[in-house]
Amino acid sequence: MYRTHTCGALRIEHAGQEVTLAGWVQYNRDFGAMTFIDLRDRFGITQLVFNKDIDETLFLRAKELGREYVIQVSGKVAERYNKNLEIPTGAIEIIVSTLNILNTSEVPPFTIEDNTDGGEELRMKYRYLDLRRKPLKNNIILRHKVLQATRNYLDQQGFLEIETPFLIKSTPEGARDFVVPSRMHPNEFYALPQSPQLFKQILMIGGYDRYFQVVKCFRDEDLRADRQPEFTQIDCEMSFNHQEDVIEVFTGMARHLFREVLQVELGDIPLMTYDHAMRKYGSDKPDLRFGMEIQYLNELVKGTEFPPFRDALAQEGTVAALLAKGCSAYTRKQLDQLTDFVKEPHRGLSGLIWVKWNEDQSITSSVGKFFDESSIKSWLANTGATMGDLLLIGAGPINKIQKSLGDLRLELGTQLGLRQKNNYAALWVIDFPMFEWNEEGKFWSFMHHPFTSPRAEDLDKMETHQGEVKAYAYDFVINGSEIGGGSIRIHDKEIQAKVFHALGMTADEAKDKFGFLLEALQYGAPPHGGIAFGCDRLCAILAGVESIRDVMAFPKNNAGRDLMLDAPAVLSDGQKKELGLK
Amino acid sequence: MYRTHTCGALRIEHAGQEVTLAGWVQYNRDFGAMTFIDLRDRFGITQLVFNKDIDETLFLRAKELGREYVIQVSGKVAERYNKNLEIPTGAIEIIVSTLNILNTSEVPPFTIEDNTDGGEELRMKYRYLDLRRKPLKNNIILRHKVLQATRNYLDQQGFLEIETPFLIKSTPEGARDFVVPSRMHPNEFYALPQSPQLFKQILMIGGYDRYFQVVKCFRDEDLRADRQPEFTQIDCEMSFNHQEDVIEVFTGMARHLFREVLQVELGDIPLMTYDHAMRKYGSDKPDLRFGMEIQYLNELVKGTEFPPFRDALAQEGTVAALLAKGCSAYTRKQLDQLTDFVKEPHRGLSGLIWVKWNEDQSITSSVGKFFDESSIKSWLANTGATMGDLLLIGAGPINKIQKSLGDLRLELGTQLGLRQKNNYAALWVIDFPMFEWNEEGKFWSFMHHPFTSPRAEDLDKMETHQGEVKAYAYDFVINGSEIGGGSIRIHDKEIQAKVFHALGMTADEAKDKFGFLLEALQYGAPPHGGIAFGCDRLCAILAGVESIRDVMAFPKNNAGRDLMLDAPAVLSDGQKKELGLK
Repeated sequence: MYRTHTCGALRIEHAGQEVTLAGWVQYNRDFGAMTFIDLRDRFGITQLVFNKDIDETLFLRAKELGREYVIQVSGKVAERYNKNLEIPTGAIEIIVSTLNILNTSEVPPFTIEDNTDGGEELRMKYRYLDLRRKPLKNNIILRHKVLQATRNYLDQQGFLEIETPFLIKSTPEGARDFVVPSRMHPNEFYALPQSPQLFKQILMIGGYDRYFQVVKCFRDEDLRADRQPEFTQIDCEMSFNHQEDVIEVFTGMARHLFREVLQVELGDIPLMTYDHAMRKYGSDKPDLRFGMEIQYLNELVKGTEFPPFRDALAQEGTVAALLAKGCSAYTRKQLDQLTDFVKEPHRGLSGLIWVKWNEDQSITSSVGKFFDESSIKSWLANTGATMGDLLLIGAGPINKIQKSLGDLRLELGTQLGLRQKNNYAALWVIDFPMFEWNEEGKFWSFMHHPFTSPRAEDLDKMETHQGEVKAYAYDFVINGSEIGGGSIRIHDKEIQAKVFHALGMTADEAKDKFGFLLEALQYGAPPHGGIAFGCDRLCAILAGVESIRDVMAFPKNNAGRDLMLDAPAVLSDGQKKELGLK
Repeated sequence: MYRTHTCGALRIEHAGQEVTLAGWVQYNRDFGAMTFIDLRDRFGITQLVFNKDIDETLFLRAKELGREYVIQVSGKVAERYNKNLEIPTGAIEIIVSTLNILNTSEVPPFTIEDNTDGGEELRMKYRYLDLRRKPLKNNIILRHKVLQATRNYLDQQGFLEIETPFLIKSTPEGARDFVVPSRMHPNEFYALPQSPQLFKQILMIGGYDRYFQVVKCFRDEDLRADRQPEFTQIDCEMSFNHQEDVIEVFTGMARHLFREVLQVELGDIPLMTYDHAMRKYGSDKPDLRFGMEIQYLNELVKGTEFPPFRDALAQEGTVAALLAKGCSAYTRKQLDQLTDFVKEPHRGLSGLIWVKWNEDQSITSSVGKFFDESSIKSWLANTGATMGDLLLIGAGPINKIQKSLGDLRLELGTQLGLRQKNNYAALWVIDFPMFEWNEEGKFWSFMHHPFTSPRAEDLDKMETHQGEVKAYAYDFVINGSEIGGGSIRIHDKEIQAKVFHALGMTADEAKDKFGFLLEALQYGAPPHGGIAFGCDRLCAILAGVESIRDVMAFPKNNAGRDLMLDAPAVLSDGQKKELGLK
């Protein structure tokens, strides 16, 4: 061993002990006859002292140590005169008697500090240096704790971790597969799994009862910000359970993780139907850290001649409002920005109407010309407004209203400081629709995946009223992020065939794509269901960071490139030839 | 929940309780007015009773239940008249009052029993049925326990589990890479990792101090029996440690695993040099469950005119023997078989000489004509023979002798029952050579990998006496299987450059292949080293099975095919076009 203690271990009670430490030079500060070095390792920072009066040779050598040099020192632990109360080792320092340079270092291209001066590309190229920074290091350690706590919880609940294969078969369904040419079988390819979905169902059919795996998954999608071609899933499945049993087990897991990793007790974790979430929050992943629900004014404005309201109601649309408490002082400019926000093309509202109940008791509104004060007062009364509030009203087709007011709600929540990252609100969204209408292709597509079980009471609507069929599908949502999603699966081969049919798949197509699953369903498949959590997103929420890259040791950039490795890269002609690619 | 208890939970103290169980019909036995069903799930088997006199309708329905039907039953727990002492639930049975068929089953293509009648290909195609068999199920559960115990041990030792990427860069070195075409970067490819070797070194350079990962690795090799294109590694690395520290930590892990998983205390785990292992056991992974070391007779036969001995000694070869205790009664046929064994082309001895010290005190030998009895007696005396023993002697080049007698030793050990699978002998083999001579290509190649540190005392031999350079490389061996291997790595960029040079790599080639590592070594790399365990092989040893396929849920066959999925497979033209492969 190169050390007797780590750089995070020593305390005042070690004073007087001879110790040996090893680590990196964080700072080297020259105070004339004294040189102070902050020695850093994964566990902390310890101050080293070199005193010219005690050993001048050593003192001079220490002065020459550059940032990020790796050194080993021996010396005596001493109480510090100026204690640093911000770090656990701040009460002591080491009076160094021997110094051994284990390795030198070039000057790093950016500083190894909490807030670095390196741009993201530079930090990714020198990831080993970026990884030395404390915020990133803490995230990686947190991720380890999340995985350990996850495994311990699931193990205690009787889940078995079972590894499923990575070299599987491509099914041109959903997202694009990454593929792997087979050298031994020319012109054939493996695919990398987008998820172990079918394998976990196979394991349930195999009688394994409760399965989990922390597993890499792969999707060859055009990358958006904060999406990675390879990502980690906490993948789970269980047999002989109903939806409420799955929800109970994984509510327990979420509570366990927050308790173990953050020492936080999650509050109430309600169930909310998809329809309710869409209606009240305009989102299937509502952020429940604050209220400000969407309120519908249709009854109040019925019969009005005001064109936006009249037209919306005539076209089966809606008139709905958000009540921004205490925002009556919003300026014209702020209101214009909010209006522009809902008018952005992907939201598509034509405008936003506002009503202010000012602090001087007066009521002002952008539609004062069109409505008498009693009408406007009825809106305020019905939405629960009090003096000082701002009411924002939109009108239009129901989906645009929900999208726009849902987004606006989040924007206002952010502006008003209602979305603190160390405040957690979790819920389950249930009763998702089984199918969704693909407007472009004019067909019914699955919302979750084609193995999701429709609700028993909706089975007879599958061929005729697809839009009304709900599924035993559920999402786990924290702070407006979907971090887990799952469903009870179909275990009956007849129902599975009906679902494939409703999705427009012929029996032959279904067999071609999912033949082995259909075959397996014939041999005693038990009722089963499960869930998968996005491990990267979960860790990001627990770490309180925006980007999943900050909880991954080696992320790729937005172009899917590993900048440290410079991958992907061209292959040699020999390799390509051997794989039949040339 | 579909059940109140699992099929392994009920005991005599539950008698009288109303319970609900769910599971698979293992057997359905008709005893006239009674039908007995063995209901199976992951946790065990419980006997169900249907009595015609109590409920004839139910009785008749039960009679119709086929093998592998999935059913749910409710009833009362009753003490059994004929107890089955072989299973934990054997004292009770369920007097069934309600029966619910959850799913039917076709007749399986092979029986779901401990010893199945299915051939391996059939069992792999219907893997979900094979996985229901108890021996395979127990192996998968054991594997889960191994992984849990591994993680808990390493977590306690301060190791962090950190995920490294799967889509990396191909380095045409060692085994062949599987590659993944990039759609976003036409004509470029990712590679799947053969191991996370460079990433774990990068993590040490990043200051993570102790890393581990249970991780899939990929090698596109021509498959031999019991080799898989994807396999699992327990991959570990640590900083600021010497070889003995790594060995201490992972000796602890091995002891922990055997204790936790098998309740077995491993005995002494010695260190043995590579040279000693080769000399005494003819193998760098000696099976220490028994002795029978190779004994060298060179001094005893010096000066003999017996041509095989004389020629061997004249050509710097050797004369060596194995003492087979109690084998003097081996027949001519048996001795011929052993002779044929060492004469097989990959062993290449020209013959085997035998000496028997028979139970009647007489001594007989295949070379009685050439040697006087006193010579032969001196061989017996010097090898520690006693009456009843058989001495087997070979002569030839040292490498052939070691290979042949090493293999012969294992063969005799097997024949003599000295290699019981529930007896465990572990050791560390250390001081491996740094380089090995490639006879075909006439160059020095690395034995472990090019990042392995040569021993400090051998550094000056690197350019001139490559064959004498030993490395800080070590293997962990149990029962003659190498299940772990590792080394102290080079952390000094000058030494790394020297090793690349000794391997015949120019500076440009080294930079092209390992540029990012060489660059990283310039920024304060700490001393570090690690190890990787073959998880599949480790589990096979713990499970007491021969083939790693029997500890994997979804193995591929010898042609690298997944028979259940029928992968690899052809891609659609659209997919190929998109990837630029058409």
